[in-house]
Amino acid sequence: MKALGPIPAGFAAIDGELAIDGHKVSDLVERAHETPLFVYSRRMLMEKVAQLRAAMPQRLGIHFAMKANPFAPVLDVMSNLVDGFDVASAGEMTMAFAAGVSPQKISFAGPGKRDSELAAAIHHGVTLNLESEGEAERALAIAAREGRTARLAIRVNPDFDLKGSGMKMGGGAKPFGVDAERVPALARRIIEAAAEWHGLHIFAGSQALSADAIIETQGQTLDLAARLATEIGAPLPHCNLGGGIGIPYFPGDEPVDVAAIGAALEARFAALPDVLRDTRFNIELGRYLVGEAGIYLTRIVDRKISHGEVFLVTDGGLHHQLAASGNFGTVVRRNYPVAIATRFGAPVEEEASVVGCLCTPMDKLAEKAGFPRADVGDLVAIFCAGAYGASASPAAFLGHGPAHEMLV
Amino acid sequence: MKALGPIPAGFAAIDGELAIDGHKVSDLVERAHETPLFVYSRRMLMEKVAQLRAAMPQRLGIHFAMKANPFAPVLDVMSNLVDGFDVASAGEMTMAFAAGVSPQKISFAGPGKRDSELAAAIHHGVTLNLESEGEAERALAIAAREGRTARLAIRVNPDFDLKGSGMKMGGGAKPFGVDAERVPALARRIIEAAAEWHGLHIFAGSQALSADAIIETQGQTLDLAARLATEIGAPLPHCNLGGGIGIPYFPGDEPVDVAAIGAALEARFAALPDVLRDTRFNIELGRYLVGEAGIYLTRIVDRKISHGEVFLVTDGGLHHQLAASGNFGTVVRRNYPVAIATRFGAPVEEEASVVGCLCTPMDKLAEKAGFPRADVGDLVAIFCAGAYGASASPAAFLGHGPAHEMLV
Repeated sequence: MKALGPIPAGFAAIDGELAIDGHKVSDLVERAHETPLFVYSRRMLMEKVAQLRAAMPQRLGIHFAMKANPFAPVLDVMSNLVDGFDVASAGEMTMAFAAGVSPQKISFAGPGKRDSELAAAIHHGVTLNLESEGEAERALAIAAREGRTARLAIRVNPDFDLKGSGMKMGGGAKPFGVDAERVPALARRIIEAAAEWHGLHIFAGSQALSADAIIETQGQTLDLAARLATEIGAPLPHCNLGGGIGIPYFPGDEPVDVAAIGAALEARFAALPDVLRDTRFNIELGRYLVGEAGIYLTRIVDRKISHGEVFLVTDGGLHHQLAASGNFGTVVRRNYPVAIATRFGAPVEEEASVVGCLCTPMDKLAEKAGFPRADVGDLVAIFCAGAYGASASPAAFLGHGPAHEMLV
Repeated sequence: MKALGPIPAGFAAIDGELAIDGHKVSDLVERAHETPLFVYSRRMLMEKVAQLRAAMPQRLGIHFAMKANPFAPVLDVMSNLVDGFDVASAGEMTMAFAAGVSPQKISFAGPGKRDSELAAAIHHGVTLNLESEGEAERALAIAAREGRTARLAIRVNPDFDLKGSGMKMGGGAKPFGVDAERVPALARRIIEAAAEWHGLHIFAGSQALSADAIIETQGQTLDLAARLATEIGAPLPHCNLGGGIGIPYFPGDEPVDVAAIGAALEARFAALPDVLRDTRFNIELGRYLVGEAGIYLTRIVDRKISHGEVFLVTDGGLHHQLAASGNFGTVVRRNYPVAIATRFGAPVEEEASVVGCLCTPMDKLAEKAGFPRADVGDLVAIFCAGAYGASASPAAFLGHGPAHEMLV
């Protein structure tokens, strides 16, 4: 029997059913009229940000990387909780505007920005995190042509990476950012061109669970920022320290000790070198803020036995849950936290695999795990579905279309 | 330097540019107004089916598994070329109807069919490839309630798999089909319930490049069909032999010898046992029919150097090309066939990586391969983009939206 990932704290059972903020899942499904369904908890979003703020230095801004979850009602909630939004395309920028986020609070990072995207950001006064010298020149030319002042920061490709991170964004040759040693020259070019010099964006990796690794990386990031600011020879208005704080998905994963990270950062902030004394710092998080607040609910439409193994076939699948299926940048497939939502908390009675409705052996939601006995009509919950679920899955695959989404 | 996959035959250069059926890629992009863009060649679709028909026994029907490419103009073309469509959802069924495919030519396979999907198929007279005894009972109950005769086939989980296949659909415990030994009882139940007994669907795997492996599997499939038909004790009206014929994507891959497969099948057809003498046979192919007829075109928006490595950053990416990026069920990433389309056929001048515009290290379209020197504005072509490209990628990821699609 294979283990399941850990179910996040904060879920209870009502009448033997999983409840999300007091709502039984069967009631939520009835409200949505059909499965599959993503449910996001407003309370969990608010609590997560509040807990993070309590742990972090007051000086540290918290930005939301909206690529993790661009569902409009989630953006509305987040816009009232965080200090800034990071967007990765003109499409996301438009969605952030629709959620009422002020352009001054938005930064736009991402390799491969089109001229039209640069122009839109400059027009609205959104900060551009520049990924290369070429992009800088394009942005300056567009600003000159439009008679506007571009607000420009440089994304740095640091010489280190975040140890143990799910995705390394620094350390060696990368398509992201400008190699650290070329940053001072580019910053001086921006300042001389009379653009608004916004500062640095240093993102070394994401989805790490070790506080020690994150503390080490943040220390390296501050050292690098200080070194670069000195070489640039101008005050650093802003420094985005990147993200990196992960959430537990898999068996054995433990939550990150954010209090330890906050204490270490507090100590570093108390001893900043002069060049960073007036710098505004922020971290930028997506998955950490919204991942655990989302649950994907799907209904069992078939229970079948093949060669003695039980398969619970659902009306959901990898077209909404690509990462949970183990097919999105995963080498070894492991089980997410998954439960029979209509028998939540009931004892394990059998080994079963939960699969999706797609006609491909890749469409596995839980493999050979222990569950209470479930049958056609029962609901299955996939936890940790709040980030990179609905928007990062191939919703059109096999013609099923996107899942419903709901904020409670 | 890493190798690139083999570019399919049939592409030429005009004025130093890749041409698709006589159209220069720059002209096609101009017609579409923007990149990225999928272009599908009607000529290549027609030639592929014609070549396959010439190689296969006349008795063998050719069905199109439309999950590979549901773009409406492609469905229109295919509907005039093949003998049947295989759909995997009610959504695909609706798209097949819109392409003018007669319900009698459609079969519907897929685990996790909802009651509403079974009802729609029964209403229209679409063949249901049943995946379990439970699904059979649901279909029979719906047919009885609606006063209709369901056309029912059984999908068999065979006791063998297709050796060397990219996806194994048989051999051991599987969520697909009914274990072979339970098929006769279910077939008799269907016949006794006065449903229309359509026959068997035996799909052992997909994307194999070895003709020998496919010949062996087709032989085993015919043996199994004969054994099951004998045990059922009724003539087998129809037998879907599955698919399995792959296309070369990666360095060293060779095209499948379909002439050898056709000859072997011809020999087997000439010596069929009595129980299969009047059976209508077909194969069901998706990728093989449409994969090589599609090209994904994306424009270079940045050329950057990081630690001495060249990155060509494009306006496309894994949101349209998940499989090419190596993140869709792939263990070891290898390069698809990729070329600088605006310098097609020019000699290799440098090593470069082609990446997408998404802010993730997963977004690689070609890694450390040899290309002629390319710059901002050049077009990149990803070949073998006709199957599982547009529809099997997370188009909403990072807010970029779907790519244009065009049939020429």
